Amino acid sequence: MSASIQMAEGHAKAPALRVSREGLRTLLTWRRDVRRFRTEPLEPGLLDSLLDFAALAPSVGLSQPWRFVHVRSPEKRALVRKNFAATNADALGGYDGERAALYSRLKLSGLDDAPVQLAVFVDSDPEQGAGLGRRTMPEALFYSVIIAIHTLWLAARIEGVGLGWVSILDPVLLGADLEVPPAWRLVAYLCIGYPAEESDTPELERSGWERRADTPAIVR
Amino acid sequence: MSASIQMAEGHAKAPALRVSREGLRTLLTWRRDVRRFRTEPLEPGLLDSLLDFAALAPSVGLSQPWRFVHVRSPEKRALVRKNFAATNADALGGYDGERAALYSRLKLSGLDDAPVQLAVFVDSDPEQGAGLGRRTMPEALFYSVIIAIHTLWLAARIEGVGLGWVSILDPVLLGADLEVPPAWRLVAYLCIGYPAEESDTPELERSGWERRADTPAIVR
Repeated sequence: MSASIQMAEGHAKAPALRVSREGLRTLLTWRRDVRRFRTEPLEPGLLDSLLDFAALAPSVGLSQPWRFVHVRSPEKRALVRKNFAATNADALGGYDGERAALYSRLKLSGLDDAPVQLAVFVDSDPEQGAGLGRRTMPEALFYSVIIAIHTLWLAARIEGVGLGWVSILDPVLLGADLEVPPAWRLVAYLCIGYPAEESDTPELERSGWERRADTPAIVR
Repeated sequence: MSASIQMAEGHAKAPALRVSREGLRTLLTWRRDVRRFRTEPLEPGLLDSLLDFAALAPSVGLSQPWRFVHVRSPEKRALVRKNFAATNADALGGYDGERAALYSRLKLSGLDDAPVQLAVFVDSDPEQGAGLGRRTMPEALFYSVIIAIHTLWLAARIEGVGLGWVSILDPVLLGADLEVPPAWRLVAYLCIGYPAEESDTPELERSGWERRADTPAIVR
């Protein structure tokens, strides 16, 4: 807690935010889903710092249901790669011709190069939070984990660290391979490391897959 | 795109980020789930600006599946309040004694005061994105919408605008009441406005519901 924070009438007063509208826009614009990494390790302590940021995310009922598994051993990484290869082959089978070739070229995985790899799970039945807000929308637990990942992503960008979100995996198989408790469900597999290059254009857009729209669909 | 961005070797180079590690930490620490709002409207144009920020969120396959419904009419708002009251009563039935009383006191809804209210849906079958990355994890579409909401939340905080995420609603009934297409699924109902007060301590923690842990669970 910053020393500049004042207490008044029992409530902490917010310090001046040191983030401008344009600052946030730049950060968001340059947050990229990185697929090509340099193999050198992160600076010592940096991963812990990024995880501290993740813990600042909001969570339903303050349940903090995120569970990060650091996948380090060559044996576990080989299982993840095998999972990806099988699942990717299935996904590829759903496209044909030009789309299939493009799909292959996209190099959807940084699994071979990223020095840090995290499997992120949601504890689907956490003790913390006492169930508040998730009786009618149990998926709110998942949402909390997603926001923790996004928070980690933004913090990583500030440190010049890239993050690639791999969703082409069999989640049940991955949980079994990593021997996590049965109540944990896979949310994401994250490849983290220094990026090989930077761009403000999504990789999928540069490669011709899809174009980003500027404004969201708003109705009424 | 800022004029300061240089092109080199076919790739845009990132401008200097104007967000520091401490700046981001302050923003995240002071992002709050607001439940008590002042009733005055947002400054003109501000809602559009916040939605522009939301559109900077990443999305699986660049599908941008978020759909925002601006709930403005008294008739629609009455339906939402009715939905909340019924669902909240059900939720309350699951707690007893001190927990139940606390739950009531938490005032989980800004529905009566927030000048802007958005129902946020995911289009579960968007044309944009061609299905990439969501064959094995279709929930990735939901994740994209969550991150768009979080992005809007951070942008709102910079403008001094609070956001309260209401998850105690019957999602199917809300979709029917708002007459959205059948492929849309409710992700969140957002109350937006200027907050009645500020604090860096989660409202649930101040009211004794649960305490925030500093670091996430990391395994191995």
